[in-house]
Order: sequence, then C-alpha cells, then structure tokens
Amino acid sequence: MHVFLPDGQRLDLAHGATAADAAAAIGPGLARAAVGARVDGALADLLTPLPEGVRLAIVTKRDADDVLTLQRHTLAHVLAQAVREALVAEGHAPDSVRMGIGPVIEHGFYYDFDLPRTLTPEDLEDLEARMRAIIEARLPLRRYEVPRDEALAHWRAQGDPYKVELIEDLPEGVTISFYEQGGGDGFTDLCRGPHVPSTGDVTPHFKLMSVAGAYWRGDETRPMMQRVYGVAFATAEELEHHLWQLEEARRRDHRKLGAELDLYVLDEDVGPGLPLWLPRGAVLVEQIERLAKEMEEAAGYQQVRTPHVSKEQLFLKSGHLPYYADSMYPPMELEHVRYYMKPMNCPFHHKIFAARPRSYRDLPLRLSEYGTCYRYEDSGALMGLMRVRSMNMNDAHIYCTEEQFEAEFLAVVDLYLRYFELFGIEDYVMRFSKHAPDGLGKKYVDEPELWLRTEEMTRRALQHGGINFVEVDDEAAFYGPKIDVQIRSAIGREFTLATNQVDFAVPARFDLNYIDEHNQRRTPLCLHRAPLSTHERLIGFLIEHFAGDFPLWLAPEQVRIVPIADRHVEPARGLQARFRAAGLRSEVDASNERMQAKIRDAELYKVPYTVILGDKEIEAEEVAFRSRQEPERRGVPVAVFEAHLVEHARLRTLSMPPLGG
Amino acid sequence: MHVFLPDGQRLDLAHGATAADAAAAIGPGLARAAVGARVDGALADLLTPLPEGVRLAIVTKRDADDVLTLQRHTLAHVLAQAVREALVAEGHAPDSVRMGIGPVIEHGFYYDFDLPRTLTPEDLEDLEARMRAIIEARLPLRRYEVPRDEALAHWRAQGDPYKVELIEDLPEGVTISFYEQGGGDGFTDLCRGPHVPSTGDVTPHFKLMSVAGAYWRGDETRPMMQRVYGVAFATAEELEHHLWQLEEARRRDHRKLGAELDLYVLDEDVGPGLPLWLPRGAVLVEQIERLAKEMEEAAGYQQVRTPHVSKEQLFLKSGHLPYYADSMYPPMELEHVRYYMKPMNCPFHHKIFAARPRSYRDLPLRLSEYGTCYRYEDSGALMGLMRVRSMNMNDAHIYCTEEQFEAEFLAVVDLYLRYFELFGIEDYVMRFSKHAPDGLGKKYVDEPELWLRTEEMTRRALQHGGINFVEVDDEAAFYGPKIDVQIRSAIGREFTLATNQVDFAVPARFDLNYIDEHNQRRTPLCLHRAPLSTHERLIGFLIEHFAGDFPLWLAPEQVRIVPIADRHVEPARGLQARFRAAGLRSEVDASNERMQAKIRDAELYKVPYTVILGDKEIEAEEVAFRSRQEPERRGVPVAVFEAHLVEHARLRTLSMPPLGG
Repeated sequence: MHVFLPDGQRLDLAHGATAADAAAAIGPGLARAAVGARVDGALADLLTPLPEGVRLAIVTKRDADDVLTLQRHTLAHVLAQAVREALVAEGHAPDSVRMGIGPVIEHGFYYDFDLPRTLTPEDLEDLEARMRAIIEARLPLRRYEVPRDEALAHWRAQGDPYKVELIEDLPEGVTISFYEQGGGDGFTDLCRGPHVPSTGDVTPHFKLMSVAGAYWRGDETRPMMQRVYGVAFATAEELEHHLWQLEEARRRDHRKLGAELDLYVLDEDVGPGLPLWLPRGAVLVEQIERLAKEMEEAAGYQQVRTPHVSKEQLFLKSGHLPYYADSMYPPMELEHVRYYMKPMNCPFHHKIFAARPRSYRDLPLRLSEYGTCYRYEDSGALMGLMRVRSMNMNDAHIYCTEEQFEAEFLAVVDLYLRYFELFGIEDYVMRFSKHAPDGLGKKYVDEPELWLRTEEMTRRALQHGGINFVEVDDEAAFYGPKIDVQIRSAIGREFTLATNQVDFAVPARFDLNYIDEHNQRRTPLCLHRAPLSTHERLIGFLIEHFAGDFPLWLAPEQVRIVPIADRHVEPARGLQARFRAAGLRSEVDASNERMQAKIRDAELYKVPYTVILGDKEIEAEEVAFRSRQEPERRGVPVAVFEAHLVEHARLRTLSMPPLGG
Repeated sequence: MHVFLPDGQRLDLAHGATAADAAAAIGPGLARAAVGARVDGALADLLTPLPEGVRLAIVTKRDADDVLTLQRHTLAHVLAQAVREALVAEGHAPDSVRMGIGPVIEHGFYYDFDLPRTLTPEDLEDLEARMRAIIEARLPLRRYEVPRDEALAHWRAQGDPYKVELIEDLPEGVTISFYEQGGGDGFTDLCRGPHVPSTGDVTPHFKLMSVAGAYWRGDETRPMMQRVYGVAFATAEELEHHLWQLEEARRRDHRKLGAELDLYVLDEDVGPGLPLWLPRGAVLVEQIERLAKEMEEAAGYQQVRTPHVSKEQLFLKSGHLPYYADSMYPPMELEHVRYYMKPMNCPFHHKIFAARPRSYRDLPLRLSEYGTCYRYEDSGALMGLMRVRSMNMNDAHIYCTEEQFEAEFLAVVDLYLRYFELFGIEDYVMRFSKHAPDGLGKKYVDEPELWLRTEEMTRRALQHGGINFVEVDDEAAFYGPKIDVQIRSAIGREFTLATNQVDFAVPARFDLNYIDEHNQRRTPLCLHRAPLSTHERLIGFLIEHFAGDFPLWLAPEQVRIVPIADRHVEPARGLQARFRAAGLRSEVDASNERMQAKIRDAELYKVPYTVILGDKEIEAEEVAFRSRQEPERRGVPVAVFEAHLVEHARLRTLSMPPLGG
C-alpha cells in the first residue's frame, strides 16, 4: 500500500493499512488532523507542518473511490496532452489547440477543446494510443502556485482565451495553481487539483467514448467547443461491466423499445411530454392499474375519482400555489375565475375527507385514485416516459391518528416491498428526506417544531420496521418529510420510484377533523403515498428492467398463433377465441408472410408464447409452441397449455417455469 | 263528436269522424283547405269563406293533443280571471292586478302577474276553487279584433303597462285580437288565441302547482312578476300519473339520492360542474367501466390512453377550434404555445391511427378509451351530474372502409341494445340528426355532397337494420350526421344518452390513410361512438331509473353484516373477509347503535342484502338475511348465499330472484 503525497513523496505502508495507520506513520504532528478525517480540502494542500485550519485527507488505495477520482482527473489532463500532440503532429500550430475545462464526472471525465478541426469518432482510437504512451512514460505531475498576473501572462502567451477568462473570473486572493506533467515538453494546465503523482499512476482501464459539441460554460451564446468523453475504472472487469451496461441500456432504452414494441408515441401536434399510449402500451397501464386496485382493495383502501381541474382557491388553500406554482400548468380563466390543472390529487382527497363528518371509527381512512396529474417541466428536461408533463398515478392518501401513524407507515412500506418482489426489483435504497431550516417559509411550511416532531416519528417508524435507510437534508415535500425509494434496474441503472410522505400541515389548512373517543375535535395526520410512482416512469423502468420481455401477466400480447397454411387460419381463429375467453391476450398472424417471417415478427414483439398450428395439432387438439424458456415444444394438449398460462398469469409469476409433463 | 268553431258555432258529427269528415260537413268551399291539413294558423282564424292564403285546421276530440293545448291556454285565462276576482274580493283595486303573459307549456300553463301582494302556496287552493266556479259557469269565449289605437287605449285605461308594452312591440300591420270570457263582468285579455269556445270546455283534470318569481320577459333588469304554474290533462288518470311522476322524480332526484347515498359531491373550492366521486360513487363508475371494457374487448376494440391536454394545433387541425371553440375551456399558454384541455378524444385517436402505417388488413380498427373530456358550459346551465364540465366517457372511434360501414354501424347499435337490456331500459327512440344547408361552413364542414352521401348511407344502414328512428334537421355534429338515442327512465323522464356519429371530414384533415388491396392509398371513414354517453349522465340517469336500488352487480355495497351483539363482531369480520375474498363488496356495522337502527341504516344506503348474525347462525354456518325480494329469510347456508350472490353479480342480473331451496 502506498499513500500519494504531493511533490512525489511516497509513504509505504503494509497491506491492509488504514488512513489512521497512514496518519500515524506520517507523524504525531499530523495524526490529529488525519485520524477519522474524510476528504475536505485537497491532497495537494498537504504541507508539512500542516498550517492552521487546513484539514488533511490521506488517500490510500483502500479509499478506492477517491483514488479513482484523482486518476480520472489526471486522465483528463493526459487526454488534453494527447489532443495537443495529435494536432501538432498533423501540422497545426500549438496555439491553435485551445483548452477549456476538463472535470471528473460520473464514471469518468471529459475535456472541452476549441480546435482547428473537428474531431471524429475515428480520432478516438489514435488519441487513446497517445494517452497510453503518456501513461507509460510515467510523467510526474508537479503542482505550483502562480501569482495572478503571471498566470494571466502565461495563458495569454499560449493564446488561450478560455484559461484567461477562467482566471479573470476567479475572485482576487484565490490561490492560482498550475499542474505540469512531463516538464516543458509535456503539458501544463490551470488546475486546482488534486492529481495522482505521475501519469503512470492512472488506471489503464479507461476508454474514450465519444466526441460531441458543447457550448463554452453551457451558454448557448458562447462558442461551441468539442467535448471528448472518457470512462475509467479501477479494474478491467468494472470497465467491461460498464461498457456492457451501456450497450444493454442502449438495447433496452425505453424510447427505442417503446417504438419497436408499439407501446407509446409522442406527437408534435399534441405536445412534448404528453405520451399517447398505443393499444399494446395501454395493456401495460391497464394491468398495472388492475394490480394496484387488487392490492389496495385487499389492504383496505377505498377508491375515489376526482376532476383534473380546479378553481385557484383550492390550490391556494392547499399551499400548492404558494409553494409549488413553478411546477404547475398556467391558469385558465373561466367566468372570471382562474382554474388550474391538478399537479397532485391531495387537495381533492382532502375535500372528500371533509365532505362528511368523520369519527375516530372511520380512521384510518385510505382514499386511492388512479388519477392523472399535470406538471410543468421545462421542455428541455423532458425525456421519453421518464420525465413527462402528464402523469398517471396510483395515488392514495391515508388519514389517521398519531397512534395509527407507525402501523400505517409500515403497511405502506410493506406494500412497496410486495410490488418490488412482483417486479423482481432486488436492489433498492430508502431515502428519508428532511427539511432544511433555512427553507422554512419558502420551500417548506414554517412550522419548525412540527418538522422535527414528524421527522422523529418517521425515523422511529423506519427503525422499528427494521428498514435500511439513508437520511438526506433539504429534500422534503413542502408539507412534511418523505421517503423516496431508489431502485436499480436489472442493468444497474437507478430510478426514483416510490414515495411516501407525511403531511402534518395541510389537513389543518383544510380544517379536516374527526371526533375522537372523548367527543373532541381532532386534526388527522395524512400520509401521501404513490408506491409505483407514475405509470409513465414505472413502465419506462420496466421496459428497461425486462428489456421488453415482460412477465406473462404484463405482456401486451401473450400468445401469438401462427397457422402453417391458409387452411389453418380458421382453426387458429377458433383457438384465439378459446384463449381470449380464458382471459389470455392472443393474436393470429394471418398475413401472407412465410412462417419463419411470422415467427420472427412474434419474436420482435417479444410475445412470450408463439403457437404453431398445423394439421397434426388441429387433429390432436394439441399445440406446438416456442417460448423464452422452451424454444421448441410439441404435442402439448391445448387444455394443459391454456391452464398453465392462465394459472401463471393469475399468479403474476415473474418468469415462466417450463410446462411440466 | 263536435268540432269547435269560433263564435260559438258547433258542428256535430258522428262518433269516429275524422278531420276530413268535418271538413266535408263544413261544406265544399272549405274541404280543399281542410282535408289532410295539420294545424297551421289557428282555429279562430276560421272564417267563411276562407280568405286566400289562410289554412284551416279542424280540431276534433280525436286530435287529443291539440284539444288539450287549447284547453290549457284557456285555463291560463281562467286562472287570470280567478286571480283578479280573489284580489278584488280582498279589497284590492281592480287596476292593481296587472297581467303579464299566460302561455301553454309542457304539461300545462302558467300566468305571470304583477300583484298588490305576494301569493303564497296557500292561495293556490282558493284560486283553484274560483277557477272551477268559472268553468262551471260555462262562460263563452269571444274573439274580436281591435285597431291598434283602440287596443292601446283599452289597456292604458286598465292601467296595465305590460299589455301596453306587448302591443307597442308588435309590428305595425299585425292583427290585434282580444279574447273575452263572460262578457263585461268576466275577463278580457290581449291574445292571439286559439281557445276552446267556452270555459266549460276545458278539462276539469287540472291542478295549480306552484307560485314563483319570474322576471318580466326573462330580463333580470325588469320587474319581478309572480308566476303561477298549473298542469292539466285530458283524464284524471293522466293527471294522477303526472303527479306521481313528479313525486317520484323528487324522491329519485339524483342530486338528492347522490347526497343520501354518499355517491358524489360538488365543492365550492373545486368549482361548479366538477363532481368528486366518493368511494360509493366510484364503485358505480368502476363497475360501468369494467362492463364496457369487457363488452368492448369481446367486440374487438383495442384500448388506448391519451392525454387530457394538447397543443392548439391539434384542435385547429381537427376543426374543434373553428367549429367548437365555444364549448371548450380557455387556453393555457406554455412556452409560448397555447394548450387546450380536450373537449373530445377523437383527435388523439386519429393521431394513434396515424402513428403507424395501416393496411386494409388492419381495418376495421376500433380504438376505445375511458377518457375524461372537459367542456365549457355556462355555470347557469350546470345541473348535478346531468350537465357537468368534466365528463368521463367510454368513447371509441372505429376506422373502416365504406364497405365495412354498415356492419360496423349496426354492430354499434347492437352494443347499445345490449347495454339497454342490462339496465332494463325498454323505452328509447333513435334520432337521426342531419345537417342544415344554411349551416355549411359555419356549424358544419362545407362539403354539401358528402353530407348527402353519408346521410343516405346512415339512413340505409338504419333501414337495413330494421331500426325505428326519427329524422331531425340541423342537429348533426360538425363533421357528419349522428344518431342520438333518447331513453326514458322508469318514471318516464327522457334522457339523451348514446351517440353514434359518422365522420367523413376529419380523417382527411388528419391525412389518415391505409393501403388497400390494390396498393392504393385510401382515406378511412370514422365512426365516433359513446353508447353510454358520459359516466356522469349515465349514473345520474341510473340513480333515477333505479331510485338508488341498484342491481346487485352495481350496488356500491352488496352485503351489510349486522352482528347482533358485541361477541358477534369478530365472526362478522370473518364473514366479511370471506365475502370480500369472493369478490363481494361487504361492510360490517360494528357501531354501538341498536339493531333496528343498524338495519334502518342499511336500508337508507339501499344495500341489497343485510345479513343478521347471531349465535345460531355462527354455530350452523348459516345466514339470516333481508333483501328487497325477501324481507326475512333464515337458515340459509353461508355457501349457498354466497354462491347465489356471486353468480348473479357475475351475470349482472337486473333484479335478484329469490334464493331457491
């Protein structure tokens, strides 16, 4: 094990050493600062003795994430050096190769350039080879500080307007540092650091991914730069896994599969973020809605239905207009009254609670709705089904007493887990989002004590339920703390789905109350919950998660029947009618295509079962079929096949076992 | 049989004579005008010889409707005479009793007065007695014409500003006629007629119903008059039936029952015409939606789901904005684009048709949606669930070739009839609504030949289907002719429900096309259909039709379980869980009320079955129950009871047969 220190110092420690050991080895003068410290400030700030106020981070290889961050940062500099070398080798003047910025990003790094010619994907291979040569040369990195005037003079001499601008934008008094690799023939960059000590210390498991246009500093009025993206990982396996994930993500992209499987369309005349569900996609929504209705009915919810639009005064009362107006559609004015499309269902459910006198006997009252809400998102932020402006939700609000809160809260979490099991979601994290005191009265209702009390109630409920969670500040809803559930798809991408929110504020604003056992008027608590997020996002997730190979119960088409010859079309329709009567979604391919083309078409639509129907099968009342698990089965009695599918669709089995017998 | 002629002439004819006989009896000079004529002009216009251009109507008692109209009109004059008499008898000056107008309306008549005191419901009995005395006096009615100046002078002398105003508003040259009953001591009114010859000729089967305020000539800036309403019928049975209907309509009023049965609420903060469905009402919507989905799936429809909002350009393309803007919500402006809430689903379905290349093999393509549409109605026109601003529909659009049109059209009519059977709707009329040439380019797309062709296609389909229908001009949709179905509820009130519209215009505007057998591009026809109208209106109708006693399958709560004592509450919950697992909607009344109060509560909610649970039943696994058909059954095995209900809910039986055995 070794610890990187600035200026090439190296501290060798035995394998398995910790940051604390490193601090002890460096010496007692530093140990206080180092022990238990996490990165705060930069490695390059390490000076001996440590100045007052500077905190030290010892980065060892056991702090793999931090090492990787340093390596990725250095790789950006190596890339910049390689780009300059390559273009100068082509005959371009060194000062025609201008450098922008080169930060670390998730999975890797990028660097923005202003170049005398446009880079193409074909350049990436050559650049990668040049980078590997720079790495092999093990050029040491050296950090040095430069007075502001000298720094400006340096970059002006290099003819680099971008670095000049960056320095000019730095406040007076900020230390300006340069990083130089390989001395005068190498490469020097304006940089805060930190870096690894030598180009030889970067990970060799990197890859340049793409080159794309990007405005200087993200401002569309500024010059267009060329941005080269790279990824880098500690091990070859991680790099390979990442590349596989990217490829899978491309293959499974819900926008691509959404089009290929005829699930939904977006239409220019209708508008961005407003998906239209085609028949096959509408089956997914319908099946999810049915599942949610069944599960919620069993869990004692009562369904309601409310309008999509309301007078302004409802949303003033609920607090949406003061706290949430930016996410709402603009108003419509009708008979001198402003109406808004609903961004959430809650105020309507509060109205239903208030529509009748309530007693403690009515609590908990669980109102659910398959409502559609409308929220304004900037059109630039919209993305397929994942970010839309119209969202269908299996939403519900639970009105309960404080005593009932914990049981209701945990029942909701339990509901989540059952959904996750059904969808094969194994990897999830519960995020407990709290308020931030400086947002009170702005993003959050101004009730500091109630915030602390309900946050504590929620924390206790999570602990009592034995639930793993992380706490996050300043991400609560405006009316109370919330739990978001972040789940990972089969290819490891993260989605925020479920949400479970405690509302201590709005019931009182709506003057909601019930009569308790002692004939006293009390205000109920309200839980807002939407365990499946929006149907749009859930389906976007499921498309990727299952790569379009939906479980039988969800599959838009469950059985494709392919008649071998024209004379089998009528019996095929008879079989289809039989399957449909049994509740299976079935189609007949009666087109003039050849059989192989028909089978391929069923595969393209990812139909779980394709039945091939010929004389033999009709004669014997049997089916021959293909499925994911059973690429070729013959001689299965129709009744056995049908019963197998019906039963597993009913059970909502995640993947179909082979048909016995 | 006698024919009323003016000035007391009477023409006696044998029983069974027709208008033609009457015309013949009056003499050859009149026969030409009279034979085959329907009322056009008035009886009082009959003069001998008939002047050029005047058409004669002979009204005999066989023309019962016309006689009743004359009688109702005369009753309005009799009422006016009675009101004057009554107030003068109280000591008011005759000229303080001022007359407005007294027309015939559906079921009866009214008269508007400006009086020295306010009439109360208690006055109606005395007025009715005075009217009967005037009728018994058999006062002859005499019509005479008066020059304009003389008429004005007469009413000025009477001190009646209203009649003066009415005469002043008549164009110069219009004949001004007076009707006098009972000579100078009787009553004289400005009136065009016609009337029966004597107050003795009015029907005695009348009743004064109410007195209410009404602005003079409907103008809220003019004086408030007092309007006395009366009804009148030819027979005592008809009057009685009408009064029963009114009473039933009051009892069954969907607004009253909607509140009593906890079905829906309207909320001031949400806005007028935007109902919120409470859990019990949401069951009705859900059940109807399930029914429609099942029936449509079986009929080969494919479900889709589309947004509630769209860019302006969609509705410009569809023609809604030019032709239908008055019924739409106002726009919302988002990123400089105007968005509208959808008033109909069709443009979205057209977009789905257009989203994929279509071949003749795909036709007919039937797209259905349980969408919610939003239409602007003046807040004064809104009424409970019958006229709303937010409407849920089981809407569908069928894209087909001209050859397929008739079969598809009749299949839709067939679907209607199956729904009607299920809801016990026996009385209905199909209205075939056509365009009007002078609305072309305004209310109707400007395609005169296509209008005639599709109207003829529709007429032929109706005739081929053996469907009774009436044709109506100037009530088509803007894009084509339509069929509305008017149904009558159990108490005879009329509702317009189903609609089936032919669209020959919009598919071309959306550039919809398919490739036909000869590889040619063709535009499909489109049928718009919504057999159950909106869920709001349908449910409003069903509440009245069933008086809240919904068939078992629709009933929000199907079984109420009433435990006899506290120790039976737990077994009752067990029974409820059993029923729920079997798909029955069941509640337990565990309140502290006495048993009779609990049974009454179940009756108030019109729960079809109330199960009383005590030791004996629990012991024997039996139920004792009450239902509409079986007020008291005991000793029925739970399994038998449950199977009976499950089976009839599945079959959607209209009324439950008694439980056998």
